[in-house]
Amino acid sequence: MITSIVNPRIKQLVQWQDRARDRRKDGVFIAEGIKMLEEAPMEWIREIYLTEEFAGRLKHAKSEKEHMLWKKLEDARFEFVTKEVMKRAADTQTPQGVLLVLKQPAYTLDYILQKGKNGLYLVLEDLQDPGNLGTIVRTGEGAGVSGIIMSSKTVDIFNPKTIRATMGSIYRVPFIYVETLSDTLAQMQKAGVTVYAAHLKGETLYHDFSYKGASAFLIGNEGAGLKKETADAADFCLKIPMEGSVESLNAAVSAALLLYEAKRQRS
Amino acid sequence: MITSIVNPRIKQLVQWQDRARDRRKDGVFIAEGIKMLEEAPMEWIREIYLTEEFAGRLKHAKSEKEHMLWKKLEDARFEFVTKEVMKRAADTQTPQGVLLVLKQPAYTLDYILQKGKNGLYLVLEDLQDPGNLGTIVRTGEGAGVSGIIMSSKTVDIFNPKTIRATMGSIYRVPFIYVETLSDTLAQMQKAGVTVYAAHLKGETLYHDFSYKGASAFLIGNEGAGLKKETADAADFCLKIPMEGSVESLNAAVSAALLLYEAKRQRS
Repeated sequence: MITSIVNPRIKQLVQWQDRARDRRKDGVFIAEGIKMLEEAPMEWIREIYLTEEFAGRLKHAKSEKEHMLWKKLEDARFEFVTKEVMKRAADTQTPQGVLLVLKQPAYTLDYILQKGKNGLYLVLEDLQDPGNLGTIVRTGEGAGVSGIIMSSKTVDIFNPKTIRATMGSIYRVPFIYVETLSDTLAQMQKAGVTVYAAHLKGETLYHDFSYKGASAFLIGNEGAGLKKETADAADFCLKIPMEGSVESLNAAVSAALLLYEAKRQRS
Repeated sequence: MITSIVNPRIKQLVQWQDRARDRRKDGVFIAEGIKMLEEAPMEWIREIYLTEEFAGRLKHAKSEKEHMLWKKLEDARFEFVTKEVMKRAADTQTPQGVLLVLKQPAYTLDYILQKGKNGLYLVLEDLQDPGNLGTIVRTGEGAGVSGIIMSSKTVDIFNPKTIRATMGSIYRVPFIYVETLSDTLAQMQKAGVTVYAAHLKGETLYHDFSYKGASAFLIGNEGAGLKKETADAADFCLKIPMEGSVESLNAAVSAALLLYEAKRQRS
């Protein structure tokens, strides 16, 4: 049982919560809560921290699901911490009582592109809002996205706010960061993917294109939108119509509309 | 020039930022930043606070837009505050240097329903995330929503995080809070509105309904979804399909998909 907030392992957890650089260096990320525990692949789990209260609730629960979870915890091994220590290590205000350290997955562009004609991709340029990115990963899984490609200036996908907003989809949606988006777009186009940019200069409405072939949607930064050179690298620009005085939509909303339009056309 | 953070007017601003009850009692809300100033209806403005830095930038700017804004500020009258005072009064980490106190608008259900056959409505039950609500208002304006109806337990729409996420749409989208959703739904149905519930028990895909007539979409709480009695009051339940292990979508994403599907069918 770890009882002190100055315990070196707890200090390490706080650093991993706070700093993308430390997460990257050690190749780990942190997830919290029962849903993130339940859905975590065993082979990703490095460390688990529990409060006794959380363990007690699980052990005495009557449902099959909770018994399975308890078995998973015993198999993976865990460490008890006090409520105060959990509060220090957790990123949430009212921690559920379980925190996992997980191995960062690593995917390649080839892996992501293997869906061929059925591929459905998101390409994100310099997105900054961690919650937005997490919502995009969650919505992406729901819409059947094959993978998410991000510019190197996009917010860290292992940010605790992002992980939370993915609601577990981080375990299942492949993604990569790339140095130069235009190079990656060229590779995707060579592999037969049509690239669509959500851009103000688009004149054709998004639902007037056919997305039945392999398709990728380019989404720009929340404030600035897509860079001109990135939009220029797309095969087509599309327009999401907006009434009233709205100048742009939230990035996660734009991604959702495009992915679900592709899904609708393919259904 | 207000130079002290214990000035009673600054204390009042902080209370309005922090407490929905105080905003409601005084019938006001707070908005920050140049975009919120630019789009604010003159007749809503009660007070404006500026830093000298912000005023200087505006006065010396060369664009027509910024000159108009400066004129708007002079017409509405404003008070200077120091940067430290602004930082105390603002809800944002790095305030832009302008903060407005605005009158809360008041709409009625009759006003909201006046669109008749072309009406497009959102009905929100107990939504808790302020950013989500703001994104819904913004997306709603973009999709041409006629109004948003919220249960009384929905988060306060005048929450500073909500206001910020609306990106100005708070000024243009009518909304009301109602005590009993089922009564309001009955009134809407009597007025010819078809009510669709986004609910797990829905079997028909959302894009297989026709939304060409007056339509309302019911969206439930982020964690619990719609209450059974609320879903039962709808004319139809619809299903948003989800792949992978996704159990639900973000509330703003669901709202966006439904409103934009209606917009697509009507275009």
